[in-house]
Amino acid sequence: MALRVGVIGGGQLARMMIAPAVELGLEIRVLAEDEGMSAGLAATAVGDYRDIDVVRAFAAGVDVVTFDHEHVPQSVLRALVADGVVVHPGPDALQFAQDKLVMRARLAELGVPQPDWAAVRDVAELQAFLDAHAGAGVVKTPRGGYDGKGVRVVRAAEEAQDWLDALAEGDALLVEELVPFVRELAQQVARRPSGDTVAYPVVETVQRDGVCAEVIAPAPAAAERLVQVAEEIGRTIAEGLGVTGMLAVELFETDDERILVNELAMRPHNSGHWSQDGAVTGQFEQHLRAVVDLPLGSTAPRAAWSVMVNILGGPAEGTLEERFPAAMVEHPQAKIHTYGKAPRPGRKVGHVNVADDDLDDAVYVARAAAAHFV
Amino acid sequence: MALRVGVIGGGQLARMMIAPAVELGLEIRVLAEDEGMSAGLAATAVGDYRDIDVVRAFAAGVDVVTFDHEHVPQSVLRALVADGVVVHPGPDALQFAQDKLVMRARLAELGVPQPDWAAVRDVAELQAFLDAHAGAGVVKTPRGGYDGKGVRVVRAAEEAQDWLDALAEGDALLVEELVPFVRELAQQVARRPSGDTVAYPVVETVQRDGVCAEVIAPAPAAAERLVQVAEEIGRTIAEGLGVTGMLAVELFETDDERILVNELAMRPHNSGHWSQDGAVTGQFEQHLRAVVDLPLGSTAPRAAWSVMVNILGGPAEGTLEERFPAAMVEHPQAKIHTYGKAPRPGRKVGHVNVADDDLDDAVYVARAAAAHFV
Repeated sequence: MALRVGVIGGGQLARMMIAPAVELGLEIRVLAEDEGMSAGLAATAVGDYRDIDVVRAFAAGVDVVTFDHEHVPQSVLRALVADGVVVHPGPDALQFAQDKLVMRARLAELGVPQPDWAAVRDVAELQAFLDAHAGAGVVKTPRGGYDGKGVRVVRAAEEAQDWLDALAEGDALLVEELVPFVRELAQQVARRPSGDTVAYPVVETVQRDGVCAEVIAPAPAAAERLVQVAEEIGRTIAEGLGVTGMLAVELFETDDERILVNELAMRPHNSGHWSQDGAVTGQFEQHLRAVVDLPLGSTAPRAAWSVMVNILGGPAEGTLEERFPAAMVEHPQAKIHTYGKAPRPGRKVGHVNVADDDLDDAVYVARAAAAHFV
Repeated sequence: MALRVGVIGGGQLARMMIAPAVELGLEIRVLAEDEGMSAGLAATAVGDYRDIDVVRAFAAGVDVVTFDHEHVPQSVLRALVADGVVVHPGPDALQFAQDKLVMRARLAELGVPQPDWAAVRDVAELQAFLDAHAGAGVVKTPRGGYDGKGVRVVRAAEEAQDWLDALAEGDALLVEELVPFVRELAQQVARRPSGDTVAYPVVETVQRDGVCAEVIAPAPAAAERLVQVAEEIGRTIAEGLGVTGMLAVELFETDDERILVNELAMRPHNSGHWSQDGAVTGQFEQHLRAVVDLPLGSTAPRAAWSVMVNILGGPAEGTLEERFPAAMVEHPQAKIHTYGKAPRPGRKVGHVNVADDDLDDAVYVARAAAAHFV
């Protein structure tokens, strides 16, 4: 009987696991939040992932549980584990992706390079940090943020007054130094429960308004030492945090050639979408192989360069599908991926991958093809 | 709303359309013959494709109807068209894939090179053909054959006595000269209803016991002239027969450097499976794009060489999945595709694709990985 992988969450990451699951002969079942979500084709249940009864019933029908997002509460995750359900990544690893303060403390223990940071509970503590860091900092709510939400650059402690006022007893905000980075990078690593890890080449990511806009794989003009350091950071975190499945490590590259860890994600990640068409094993297949503890696939690139451009928002009028003819006739080499989501300003509704032996050509075609959809 | 593609037939060809349909944002619905078939994930109906009521009900829910096989009767196809259903390939084209005598007659009209052939109704007619062709011939039932079934090499007319006796009034068998070929090739072409065609590089196919065993893309050591002739034959047939979607043309290469058409298939075909991992646009995505009349994708190869090896039969004991660990750990670059079918001697249950810049390496890895599954 085919191995059954249960994915909690019905978004585009779950959707993009469907294709490799079908080809590999893994049975994929999705617990979706609602009807008609991105991963609807594989949705065998609809319900609230915070409801232990809903999640238990779903988990009973699969061999391993994994995730489209990191929002399943620890209480639910630990109840599953207590039931004997196989969960990858498990709660011990996921806590570091769910709470940025816990993550910062653990990375410090591991000796992984990261921005200066502190837990702050009031204006005085926050202002003291800012004063010690050239008067600026990045304040983050430790939980629940994504795509720039829950992140604010401040130059005076009062700018975070509302978040400080909303803190529950015993909670704190995370503040980090404002890193003078020259660019952002991302490192993908996969780790299977029995221990093996594989690393993808480090990539350059371009963010706009806190949202990933473009990815270039591998990171252009990256020094060999930098590539090795990024990979080592990725493997150290995957092993140190006990990650199973895909790990994405968002990195800052500074003007003095240091690499600092910005964020983590323990799942396939936007910065790894290029691998669907640009690597021998895409990150969605790799995640599936890892969570069912199969040997990991080759991360070798299929072309010298791969470029991913997000389709953000989608058309102001009409549907994505109406733009297919023009985009495809002009760019027959573009790989168009759509998420089955209605267009809405700023929303990630799809992406375009282009692999090419010429970087300029790949960037041009990926941008030009994606531009047809906005 | 997403374009809805309805596929009649729930086999592995329908299954392998699921992945590109999901990524491209096309809704795929399958009319399967039974529960639990290869394309079960997308099966929205189960029923008999020869039953016009079943097929009509299925067709009512989709924007275009296409096929996993060529066995839907002309009467059903023509009833759909009369209903206003969009059908690709349509009945006028499919008749040439359904009846080899009709195909031979039409290819003769088009001037496409093919083996000598004749329609024969009795022993005398068949013997006369054999006598005129060095005493040998290939007798074929014009309808219903596949994977070597309905094909018999004869050296005396009596060897086809049973088939001749079973002929209905007015029917005939096809007999073809026994071509002294040096190897077999296959040419894939896609054609969209509005007329554009794209061609893949001609590939070499290796048959065992009448079943495709291996494919090498492109065909090694193929003369440039031969590559052009194969492509021209493919385009001539696609246009001359009004094919929409993928067309596969199986070819003989003779020792005097001629190319002769052996068989046709109007759908994705085993000889094109390499393109899933070896071409920018795989044949399953290309078929979908063609049947919904979207611009066709690039057929450029992703690597110098691609090799496909079929998994025939599957393990004598146990399941395919039990062989994954050993196959994957030894061959991380192998792309394993399984069909969700129970192992059975001779049955196509999956295939392995390997793309590599070195042909010997690609052949070795693909064969070695596939060998883990038998």
